[in-house]
Amino acid sequence: MSPRILVTGAAGFVGANFVRHVLDEHPETTVVGVDNLSTGFRHQVDERVDFHEIDLTDHVALERVFAPGKFDAIVHMAAFAAECLSPFVRRHCYMSNVIASTNLINAAINHGIPRFVFMSSIASYGDCEPPFKEDATPVHNDIYGLTKYVTEQDLKIAAAQHGLDYVVLKPFNIYGPLQALDSRYRNVAGIFMQKILTDQPLTLYGDGQQTRAFTYINDILPPIWRAVSDASIKNEVFNLGSSSFHTVEEVADCIMQITGRGEKKFLEARHEVRHAYCDVSKAERLLGLAANTDLATGLGKMWDWAQRETLKPVESFGELEVTKGLYGFWK
Amino acid sequence: MSPRILVTGAAGFVGANFVRHVLDEHPETTVVGVDNLSTGFRHQVDERVDFHEIDLTDHVALERVFAPGKFDAIVHMAAFAAECLSPFVRRHCYMSNVIASTNLINAAINHGIPRFVFMSSIASYGDCEPPFKEDATPVHNDIYGLTKYVTEQDLKIAAAQHGLDYVVLKPFNIYGPLQALDSRYRNVAGIFMQKILTDQPLTLYGDGQQTRAFTYINDILPPIWRAVSDASIKNEVFNLGSSSFHTVEEVADCIMQITGRGEKKFLEARHEVRHAYCDVSKAERLLGLAANTDLATGLGKMWDWAQRETLKPVESFGELEVTKGLYGFWK
Repeated sequence: MSPRILVTGAAGFVGANFVRHVLDEHPETTVVGVDNLSTGFRHQVDERVDFHEIDLTDHVALERVFAPGKFDAIVHMAAFAAECLSPFVRRHCYMSNVIASTNLINAAINHGIPRFVFMSSIASYGDCEPPFKEDATPVHNDIYGLTKYVTEQDLKIAAAQHGLDYVVLKPFNIYGPLQALDSRYRNVAGIFMQKILTDQPLTLYGDGQQTRAFTYINDILPPIWRAVSDASIKNEVFNLGSSSFHTVEEVADCIMQITGRGEKKFLEARHEVRHAYCDVSKAERLLGLAANTDLATGLGKMWDWAQRETLKPVESFGELEVTKGLYGFWK
Repeated sequence: MSPRILVTGAAGFVGANFVRHVLDEHPETTVVGVDNLSTGFRHQVDERVDFHEIDLTDHVALERVFAPGKFDAIVHMAAFAAECLSPFVRRHCYMSNVIASTNLINAAINHGIPRFVFMSSIASYGDCEPPFKEDATPVHNDIYGLTKYVTEQDLKIAAAQHGLDYVVLKPFNIYGPLQALDSRYRNVAGIFMQKILTDQPLTLYGDGQQTRAFTYINDILPPIWRAVSDASIKNEVFNLGSSSFHTVEEVADCIMQITGRGEKKFLEARHEVRHAYCDVSKAERLLGLAANTDLATGLGKMWDWAQRETLKPVESFGELEVTKGLYGFWK
């Protein structure tokens, strides 16, 4: 069989890596990719992809992507994903995540797409007690995590009422090649390497002792494909990432070791979850997850890539909706 | 003191009743009202209200309402509230409820409004085990309920991070004068009286044995004012309505008894919560709730009003986003 899949956010970090993986490992697959290029990059999209620059909030444009032929699966990776910034850009976050996703869910129902894989995030657990398990009751802590939770629940409703067949994947703290090096807001490995490459100190918020289970991108690509292609897995939620965790300061130290450069600078604390890591046994059991790449190896590969990149100017978010309580370092 | 309050959904059923109550009982209050008139009626807005026809999804228009002077409270009652229809108009529901609410939350933060009262709904509990308590973990069952849950959580995040002071009210199955008589989708008392007035049978879904705690509108108006004006109540959630419940068929029988007309007709079951009623002891204790109007008395008063109304044609929703699985009776 030659599956035909739609990947949203195909120009983003995880999307661009996933598409390359699919086309290399499962070359019989036809990949249609969409992205609004708000944070993704056109040049990162593999040339074998049938790419469309559209914004998912535009449901009329989206409908045109569904016209040429039926998809065997939708892999929805597009998102606005700056967790700590999200309470300052509420509307943008809901539009980019909830409205975009619901347009895609509408299209999936209307076109009878047999599989909807949604890349959620562990941010949807909020400030739960770690390790997070898939059946945890969330304690919402920021708008970004809330928007991810909404689409998880929307899919459950669509499954119950409209028979939509979904898999929710909740990756966390993924890093590696193709990750944005031009963002002020995310993600820590990309920001640290950007700082090294521009001779600025590595900035840590608060005491830098926040723990996260940093996960190398290549470790999660085969499980994502499994979620797309294994029909026996249906209407399930999976945490997706490494079971070992590190402090943000350890990431800084590791990058300084690898690069032989840099210094640390501590800034005011942000409103963020202190400890976030997961129980990933379900994905290990059912999706074949084996997130074994250790931090030094993964960051080393990312640094090999980052050094060859042409750095773009660091972008600030266009128009904040709320500036009250904005952190000094983002003003 | 002469409080100045903003009421959204001021032309809707609860909003129009609440505004009249405030201006009659607390005439020192200045009421600014907004409504997009999508389901509300301009002629129901008390003439003492400074009324603006705007859509809350338009944040630029909303900002103009905040310009003339500071509000002491926002009472956010505007919503798209057709529970069973909502999975067929997902985007519309998110726009009307989530995006509208988040624009208002942004404005409340930016303008330092000291009190945000949000009329949520018990639909945000979804398919929980009744009686619903305020600390229940929701089991989301439809998009409308999910959107109400989102704004409750958004307010909690805004309180924690931005110091916004909120009260969430979760009314349920409110009926009475000024309730829409022109809707196909809600609410049962209005639909039944509309059927009586147009010589059609009263339509019940499934066996008609769904239970709801029907609540007369006037019983909840003083507690809403309490939520607006009592500074000692802060960042709290309240169920708001009657503690006694009835089946939908009992409502039909009661209306047939009052009017001396009508007959029942049973249609296919809908995807809906079977039993929904609440523990209201918290609102009784802290908001002075006393929902004592019995069903026959309340429906009698509503019928007195309904008979004097000029009936408008029954409206269908404009453009459905999904028609798959749509109930035969709505086609």
